[in-house]
Amino acid sequence: MNELIVVALGGNALQQGKGPFDANSQLSVVRGTAKQLANLIKAGRQLAIVHGNGPQVGRIVLQNEAAKALTPAMPFDVCGAMSQGMIGYHIQQALGEEMQKAGLQARPVTLVTQVLVDARDKAFSNPTKPIGMFYSKEEADAIAEKQGFVMKEDAGRGWRRVVASPLPLEIVELDQVKALLKAGFVPITAGGGGIPVVQSGEGLVGAEAVIDKDLAAWRLAEGLGAATLVILTEVENACLHYGKPEQKTLGKLTAGEMRRYLEEGHFAAGSMGPKVEAALRFVEGGPGRRAIITRLDLAQESLDGDRGTHITA
Amino acid sequence: MNELIVVALGGNALQQGKGPFDANSQLSVVRGTAKQLANLIKAGRQLAIVHGNGPQVGRIVLQNEAAKALTPAMPFDVCGAMSQGMIGYHIQQALGEEMQKAGLQARPVTLVTQVLVDARDKAFSNPTKPIGMFYSKEEADAIAEKQGFVMKEDAGRGWRRVVASPLPLEIVELDQVKALLKAGFVPITAGGGGIPVVQSGEGLVGAEAVIDKDLAAWRLAEGLGAATLVILTEVENACLHYGKPEQKTLGKLTAGEMRRYLEEGHFAAGSMGPKVEAALRFVEGGPGRRAIITRLDLAQESLDGDRGTHITA
Repeated sequence: MNELIVVALGGNALQQGKGPFDANSQLSVVRGTAKQLANLIKAGRQLAIVHGNGPQVGRIVLQNEAAKALTPAMPFDVCGAMSQGMIGYHIQQALGEEMQKAGLQARPVTLVTQVLVDARDKAFSNPTKPIGMFYSKEEADAIAEKQGFVMKEDAGRGWRRVVASPLPLEIVELDQVKALLKAGFVPITAGGGGIPVVQSGEGLVGAEAVIDKDLAAWRLAEGLGAATLVILTEVENACLHYGKPEQKTLGKLTAGEMRRYLEEGHFAAGSMGPKVEAALRFVEGGPGRRAIITRLDLAQESLDGDRGTHITA
Repeated sequence: MNELIVVALGGNALQQGKGPFDANSQLSVVRGTAKQLANLIKAGRQLAIVHGNGPQVGRIVLQNEAAKALTPAMPFDVCGAMSQGMIGYHIQQALGEEMQKAGLQARPVTLVTQVLVDARDKAFSNPTKPIGMFYSKEEADAIAEKQGFVMKEDAGRGWRRVVASPLPLEIVELDQVKALLKAGFVPITAGGGGIPVVQSGEGLVGAEAVIDKDLAAWRLAEGLGAATLVILTEVENACLHYGKPEQKTLGKLTAGEMRRYLEEGHFAAGSMGPKVEAALRFVEGGPGRRAIITRLDLAQESLDGDRGTHITA
């Protein structure tokens, strides 16, 4: 059995930050990402792939809002499911091609994935993640009253809806992912952190929330019994004093050291913070685990050597 | 091993014909469908589920077109992938709950599914499937010139884009579906007939086309080696002289008889026609096969008895 690695792809693996955001441009970025992922598989590793969806689901919400006089806007959980279809399709198409070119037998597959969260998670009483369009104060007040959404002012740019970012408890389709891995496939799962659902009687109900994709990747790695979690982002290393003259890159370090740096506030919320948090939860959750935070194009080198930030027990 | 059945769900299994088309209304129809499907599984059958997406992908296209000044409209293959995410999510959530209530161990899972078509399929030179918004003649001409789309006048209601409906050749993710079935899961696959793709070098490229979902279900049943294909629709039986005083319902009959009726023009194009065509291709493709066309709520009775239209060799 090849080494199983859960890989979390950041936004830059899926599109250029400044666009254009049309399908061809996105597919071209995804093709580059697929090449890197195929190399990891060719080197004898088995992958399970998690990806972000922030900008993409934002544009789907925007389309839903802009067309709501013509057809009902879908709620946020459904928009998330749509983004899994869209992004998963591009990754599986591009990765399938690169794996075939690399002479690999295995093939990728995207699963529509629900992730269980706790309806009593305290994140629900303090929504923080902005989604969708910008509105004037008056429009925002009307939306809040009519639809019950929480609206917040966003850095002087206008008012936006905010949703909660609760902790992922369980990958609902975990056994399905396991079955596909066992049969040698490369699952693309928990896209965008998964579609958040809460337990309701004997069933599940979609929640208007965003699950951090790195934390979803942690839950997936935990559930699959993986020994390595690789979180890919735009920088080679996590850093202390990031962007300041005394900036110091972090190479190999223990979970204890990293936990201390996290508590000291070295890592930005909504950026390096959740990546470090996910890495720590993973490494602290069991023996013999390692988490790596680095750039996509350095994934291979970091797995084989010492590029990137490595966290072990 | 339980009997494997490929089930193709028609539009009425996913939403009420006249709406409303909001998420709650759709989910409530899907819940009813899920109950029926769970009953089939409880009776000892293994299912692979294919569903339509016509109205849903139509609304996604409409949202994309309506918001194109704000964010680029996605091409039709990507809209299809989005509809697989959306519809698959609702089916897997509802079916998961019904299966749990029925005391079943198995769980459903939606796969984003590509379906190979031939770039030289003659359907591409005669697009017939209308999608998206209605335009005036002037708007339609401008779109045709700017985007290269084929626009046709639609029954006096205005001009719409039309795309081809090529024959499905292969379910690209067939082996992934097989692995999930082997492990006891209930795959939801080839939604909307699958995302149409054509071969391009070593890879696949999305095609601006619609694959008939009943024909995709035929290819799936063929590929999985299923002995039964069940095509669910709004009527209990296929009929001769449908809607006329001399209307005659079809019960059990041979492929030879049905092929003759099809050639005599008894079944409407875009309605019962493709269902009969898919059923016939399936039954004619190998020995010991049967295809059933009936209503969702009669699926159980038709599998156990003689309700519905049964076609055998």
